[in-house]
Amino acid sequence: MSALILDGKSVTKKSEEDLRSRVARLKKLSNGAVPILATILVGNDPSSATYVKMKSNACTRVGMDSLKIEMSEETTTEELLAEIAKLNANPNIHGILLQHPVPPQINERQCFDSIDLSKDVDGVTCWGFGRMAMNETSYGSATPKGIIRILEAYDIPLEGKHAVVVGRSPILGKPMAMMLLNKNCTVTICHSKTVGLDKIIKNADIIVGAVGKPEFIKAAWIKDDAVVIDAGYHEGGVGDIELEPLMNRVKAYTPVPGGVGPMTINTLIYQTVEACELKLEK
Amino acid sequence: MSALILDGKSVTKKSEEDLRSRVARLKKLSNGAVPILATILVGNDPSSATYVKMKSNACTRVGMDSLKIEMSEETTTEELLAEIAKLNANPNIHGILLQHPVPPQINERQCFDSIDLSKDVDGVTCWGFGRMAMNETSYGSATPKGIIRILEAYDIPLEGKHAVVVGRSPILGKPMAMMLLNKNCTVTICHSKTVGLDKIIKNADIIVGAVGKPEFIKAAWIKDDAVVIDAGYHEGGVGDIELEPLMNRVKAYTPVPGGVGPMTINTLIYQTVEACELKLEK
Repeated sequence: MSALILDGKSVTKKSEEDLRSRVARLKKLSNGAVPILATILVGNDPSSATYVKMKSNACTRVGMDSLKIEMSEETTTEELLAEIAKLNANPNIHGILLQHPVPPQINERQCFDSIDLSKDVDGVTCWGFGRMAMNETSYGSATPKGIIRILEAYDIPLEGKHAVVVGRSPILGKPMAMMLLNKNCTVTICHSKTVGLDKIIKNADIIVGAVGKPEFIKAAWIKDDAVVIDAGYHEGGVGDIELEPLMNRVKAYTPVPGGVGPMTINTLIYQTVEACELKLEK
Repeated sequence: MSALILDGKSVTKKSEEDLRSRVARLKKLSNGAVPILATILVGNDPSSATYVKMKSNACTRVGMDSLKIEMSEETTTEELLAEIAKLNANPNIHGILLQHPVPPQINERQCFDSIDLSKDVDGVTCWGFGRMAMNETSYGSATPKGIIRILEAYDIPLEGKHAVVVGRSPILGKPMAMMLLNKNCTVTICHSKTVGLDKIIKNADIIVGAVGKPEFIKAAWIKDDAVVIDAGYHEGGVGDIELEPLMNRVKAYTPVPGGVGPMTINTLIYQTVEACELKLEK
């Protein structure tokens, strides 16, 4: 049996068509103004620069604008907070992306949490996380929300399934666990201190790799018929899960690249359009 | 082998001695003023009235004051929000307890979330939950925080242990899972849609019963040497877990009553004293 490929590229392509028409409608409603995503890139990390570029390209593809802010490697917490405060106060900006990670001298959590809840389209604030966890209206953290969206796009059943999330980062593992819980999965969260990871993964109907280590999760640990979600991306085009041996025996999997990555970017754009719609409907 | 009894009564007794001296110190520092907990009871539910009474009694025992607010069964969301706003603005009030549950016409979530973060000593706001989950300074939800405190009082090892939380309520199951995760447990969250609950519980080193159904979790599902935490309380003095057959074969357990219940009340008081200390140190 060949596994179903959860094709992030084709799901995002379809979503972008929908978003293009929603942006066109917003443009008419507001005399030519379009949703604007502000992207903040701090420092010189080349992969961060690439990600920000991919995000602003996605804005362009659906007819939105992006406002690109680049700050030096030496930026202080206070300078970054001041920049975010300006964007919070700017009525033309609908969403704010602060590209993670920021240089080590910056208090990233404080900066994330200074983003206005109504503009937190990347889902990085503690407040937004808490609201999401309690099933209140909120923008979900972009990567896990993108994963939920791709699972839904392929009608993967979630209720009553045992999902194992490997990783507990603030913008991936923790929100992923809460989102799957809210979709009625039984959820297990594993991490670096977990004992017997292989045996726990063996029970997973749905496995989410979110550890940030190349092929850390072995194919042999994963049962036949599992749904395999790989949120990692590493040099050489591999993810956090040893995918190749699984392709003929699991139920479904996200390819690397072309699975979770495009969904993350698309979710950011999608939530920015939502933020603009909400603002206009107010 | 006889199991270790996690005796909430004796832990809270010791904590109250400590709190009494901290309150006495605060009283000196502030010319006779003591920490004040505002308790809000809405409606006529007799067990809620009992809980509120027990909480104000605990305030008295450590030398604190409580301000008792009682509102009718017909209270509207707006009336309750207005009352909370007054307490938020009152500089003499250090903590606010809104007794759960409130009558059905009230939007409980909105009322919880209107409590100022600095006075959320019962740990019920989405914002406080998000901060706790991300390991930022916060008051934890009182029952799960009380459970963490009793585990620590008895030096129960948590790191690398597999904890299974049965229940996913906003003030118990969800925060319990995040707190145990932050203590480096591997955490599984189960609920009404979970399939094969017995087998999942069989793997638990630590089991937390937080379902609200009398003896719903069977002794036969729990392995020898597990640590058993029962957060339920039902008529006839039983909890959510069938405890009696476990008393001679598990490692440790919380009795019902006298285990989690006293810890919940003590944690509320403890966090109110902390709030008052933080305010004075500002």
